[in-house]
Amino acid sequence: MTTKQIVLTVRPIGTPTNNNFKIEKIVLPEIQTGEVLLKGLYYSVDPYMRGRMNDIKSYTPPFAIGQPIEGSVVALVVDGKSEKFNKGDLVTGMLPWRTETIASEKILHKIDLSQGHASYFLGILGMTGLTAYFGIMRICKPIAGETIVISGAAGAVGIVAGQIAKIHGCRVIGIAGSDEKIKLLKEGYGFDGVVNYKTTKDMNSAIAALCPKGVDEYFDNVGGEISDAVINNLNFHARIALCGQISLYNSEETPLGPRLQPLLLTRSALMQGFIVSNYRNEFAEGITQIAQWLKSGELKFTETCIDGFDNLPSAFLGLFRGENTGKMVVKA
Amino acid sequence: MTTKQIVLTVRPIGTPTNNNFKIEKIVLPEIQTGEVLLKGLYYSVDPYMRGRMNDIKSYTPPFAIGQPIEGSVVALVVDGKSEKFNKGDLVTGMLPWRTETIASEKILHKIDLSQGHASYFLGILGMTGLTAYFGIMRICKPIAGETIVISGAAGAVGIVAGQIAKIHGCRVIGIAGSDEKIKLLKEGYGFDGVVNYKTTKDMNSAIAALCPKGVDEYFDNVGGEISDAVINNLNFHARIALCGQISLYNSEETPLGPRLQPLLLTRSALMQGFIVSNYRNEFAEGITQIAQWLKSGELKFTETCIDGFDNLPSAFLGLFRGENTGKMVVKA
Repeated sequence: MTTKQIVLTVRPIGTPTNNNFKIEKIVLPEIQTGEVLLKGLYYSVDPYMRGRMNDIKSYTPPFAIGQPIEGSVVALVVDGKSEKFNKGDLVTGMLPWRTETIASEKILHKIDLSQGHASYFLGILGMTGLTAYFGIMRICKPIAGETIVISGAAGAVGIVAGQIAKIHGCRVIGIAGSDEKIKLLKEGYGFDGVVNYKTTKDMNSAIAALCPKGVDEYFDNVGGEISDAVINNLNFHARIALCGQISLYNSEETPLGPRLQPLLLTRSALMQGFIVSNYRNEFAEGITQIAQWLKSGELKFTETCIDGFDNLPSAFLGLFRGENTGKMVVKA
Repeated sequence: MTTKQIVLTVRPIGTPTNNNFKIEKIVLPEIQTGEVLLKGLYYSVDPYMRGRMNDIKSYTPPFAIGQPIEGSVVALVVDGKSEKFNKGDLVTGMLPWRTETIASEKILHKIDLSQGHASYFLGILGMTGLTAYFGIMRICKPIAGETIVISGAAGAVGIVAGQIAKIHGCRVIGIAGSDEKIKLLKEGYGFDGVVNYKTTKDMNSAIAALCPKGVDEYFDNVGGEISDAVINNLNFHARIALCGQISLYNSEETPLGPRLQPLLLTRSALMQGFIVSNYRNEFAEGITQIAQWLKSGELKFTETCIDGFDNLPSAFLGLFRGENTGKMVVKA
């Protein structure tokens, strides 16, 4: 059968554009034993995917030129030669950006709609929620009464990270880039303090004013000068979880900034990069806890849903213009 | 009685000189109950003291202008009104740079010469040894077969840190600044690889060549461009212990360098600043273990001893010119 796919045409230099992508039609091969035919329902677009567009060593291999982009997808099993999955099952997995695709049963996980809406398995009940959970719980290690700053606070992971810190009794300060997002964090999610980095001239003073007792924990999705301002206000024994560096992903050269080591040294501070798969063996714990918080109403979730498979590239590009509030997904 | 003391005259801008210090005579007050009169025997000079010469927030308060410099000292009790210490006892403590001084019994610790030579309590059996021990054991967490790089490897802490990593089966690479030090590390201390940063043009390639499997652990005493080269070669899940940043202590402005967060993020790497007193409650464990390694011959120790109380400032200044091999002390 014929399917549509979206491939990487050339590696972007700096910020990607629609020219880095091409929609094309291909013919799928026969289904082999242990494989299923899937119809994509929801596709995840995530900032980390920008890294895979470069030809450099990272935690995941780069996308190949002429090959489809790959990401988290929720899909319906429409046919197959599998003993593990039946027609009508809903599954998630790392899958190519195709309207239909054939995949090995080994890379798929069945999802249970009683836990949440299908698209939630790309977000709060998937990598997004788990990333926030493990970054906060294993690296920031929240302590009631401490102050935590979240950059990219209105992003998919940030909005969850802030709430988890709040559940643990932290004073939560969010940094975001529009008044609409700022309002949402404050009124919709109960953040204790918020700052719009786009309209704030002196971020250093703004953070100092919002964190009169200093910054004990920093959950960083953004990097760059926003992080410089937060790190200047670090307390002794502060913990920084490096979750993302979206402000730098499109840099063509290694960006320069103040050397951090003297400050981390004198404050006995910790900085830890992580990727959610480091905690693979603990996912069950995370999902159970998140589902419980969702049920109790302690945790709320926002997603931005864009309609139409063909809009995947522009939804992805929108991440770098801050067009999403919460998790960004595309509905086929 | 009259004693000599060395005071801070003006705060240095950049590298300190002899002009930042003055030797003067003062008259000591009467000994009060709970106090002892001490005669200084050995004085420690340490890179961290440069930080206390600035008027900025750090883990220890700044030295006051017109007041004596303070550091670790081994001293003899020559008189006192103390039930804790007797005439003839040897003690250590944070004490002013004075030939004689009066101190409260509360800030002194008795030392036992059966564990090692008196000056060792400023080094391998004191802060130096414990700093190496806890930086390696609690932050680098050595694993047999992994590669560790030590910067400032021929310095007081570095030389011990490298040996402790070696005891745990690591491949140990040392960075130092003279051929004499390089030879000592290789031949005297069994380092697996060494590099002289003063004569090496491309440190990045030099580290890559010495660490063909990448860098798993980095014990950093130096910072700056030397660290950039090491960090470029980090492996996934690498651990960096920030023990010192001597290359930057004399900087007048915040030095700029490559932003590290993207690299720490993609390698899931950890960077942790520390000061030995964070592990205060575990000192007994550390001293016992170090004493055992010294006894078994697995751990060796070097010190550079300068004669004469009046030479304290120039011994201190010598640290920044790399004049010490191992721990630098001054004998009164």
